[in-house]
Amino acid sequence: MSSATATDNMLMTETPEAGRELAIKLARLSIKATQPDADVRGALRPDYAENATDLIAVAQVIATEFATIAAANRYWAD
Amino acid sequence: MSSATATDNMLMTETPEAGRELAIKLARLSIKATQPDADVRGALRPDYAENATDLIAVAQVIATEFATIAAANRYWAD
Amino acid sequence: MSSATATDNMLMTETPEAGRELAIKLARLSIKATQPDADVRGALRPDYAENATDLIAVAQVIATEFATIAAANRYWAD
Amino acid sequence: MSSATATDNMLMTETPEAGRELAIKLARLSIKATQPDADVRGALRPDYAENATDLIAVAQVIATEFATIAAANRYWAD
Amino acid sequence: MSSATATDNMLMTETPEAGRELAIKLARLSIKATQPDADVRGALRPDYAENATDLIAVAQVIATEFATIAAANRYWAD
Amino acid sequence: MSSATATDNMLMTETPEAGRELAIKLARLSIKATQPDADVRGALRPDYAENATDLIAVAQVIATEFATIAAANRYWAD
Repeated sequence: MSSATATDNMLMTETPEAGRELAIKLARLSIKATQPDADVRGALRPDYAENATDLIAVAQVIATEFATIAAANRYWAD
Repeated sequence: MSSATATDNMLMTETPEAGRELAIKLARLSIKATQPDADVRGALRPDYAENATDLIAVAQVIATEFATIAAANRYWAD
Repeated sequence: MSSATATDNMLMTETPEAGRELAIKLARLSIKATQPDADVRGALRPDYAENATDLIAVAQVIATEFATIAAANRYWAD
Repeated sequence: MSSATATDNMLMTETPEAGRELAIKLARLSIKATQPDADVRGALRPDYAENATDLIAVAQVIATEFATIAAANRYWAD
Repeated sequence: MSSATATDNMLMTETPEAGRELAIKLARLSIKATQPDADVRGALRPDYAENATDLIAVAQVIATEFATIAAANRYWAD
Repeated sequence: MSSATATDNMLMTETPEAGRELAIKLARLSIKATQPDADVRGALRPDYAENATDLIAVAQVIATEFATIAAANRYWAD
């Protein structure tokens, strides 16, 4: 059932740093999935980018996504 | 006790991208399980879709569901 | 020390769907453990069932419980 | 360095149900560690036991503790 | 790259109970890292030690730290 | 696809203590990624460094990042 090959598996990254970038991207895609309207998202940006509590909550999402990405890449230790 | 076959195991997806879609679906099903009334859910939608804090919280749920889906699919690396 | 047999292990379910149901049940049992009074719980129900933030938080609990149930069932892949 | 024997390892429980009880106990002990004064804890009890958001947050802690207990007991499947 | 020996690995504890103490300590050290001023931390103490929501949030951090410590100690089952 | 060598894998640290430092750094980098403006971040600092709830939320992020780092370093037990 799992037929993705290494080359098209979007979870695979070359380095942990690239994995961090992917985690940030996945967090943003989740918000986009719930709020597809780019104008509304743009209007909300100051709400969270200038709010300490929201920035920390975004960091929590990134940390959770990164945990999955890191496990998928076997912590880049192979 | 675990008798689901690969073909009927709803956690299995072809790709990580499909796994993301499933994570979003599972998050929505959880909200539906707690609030089965579609009218109430519809009325609440602006509350979270136009609220940065709630959008981030939804992203956290998606990240957590995706972690499970990714592990179930062995990170699509087989 | 672990003497539960497969037949009486309450974490085991036939399918992922049944695992979702169990996750919802465990979340509710946790709330019941902290607030055993059914009348108080009933009175609180509109507070969370009609509140987007609380509904999302319940979904987070369900996602966390499901992660454990899924691991216990080896992701229903055996 | 890990010298606990099976008989004195407080994480080990006979059943998943006993594991749930332990998860609730660990959550309470954490609150006790941060607020050792029983009178203050008693005074705070209505704050969370009659507040939907707090009850859900307690359920989240229980879910997280249970995940560890379940892993420690190999999901009671041995 | 991992050169810590068992004797100087601060994650290793003799028992689960000592692991709980370490989890509480790590949670406190994280707060200290973000707010190094002891006077400010002291002034904030009533804010969270007498606030149910904050006490539950601290319990969540402890649960998360303990999960890591427990895994590091192979659940004290060796 | 995973080509990082041990020497350039930023997740690898010599000790758990260095792993804690890295977890704090990753949490900060996540906030920086969402709010790149150093002046805005500086202005927000009192909001969270003098707010108990936010400090606890930062500790939660650190705990989550550390879990990944610890797993990547096989808990410094090799």
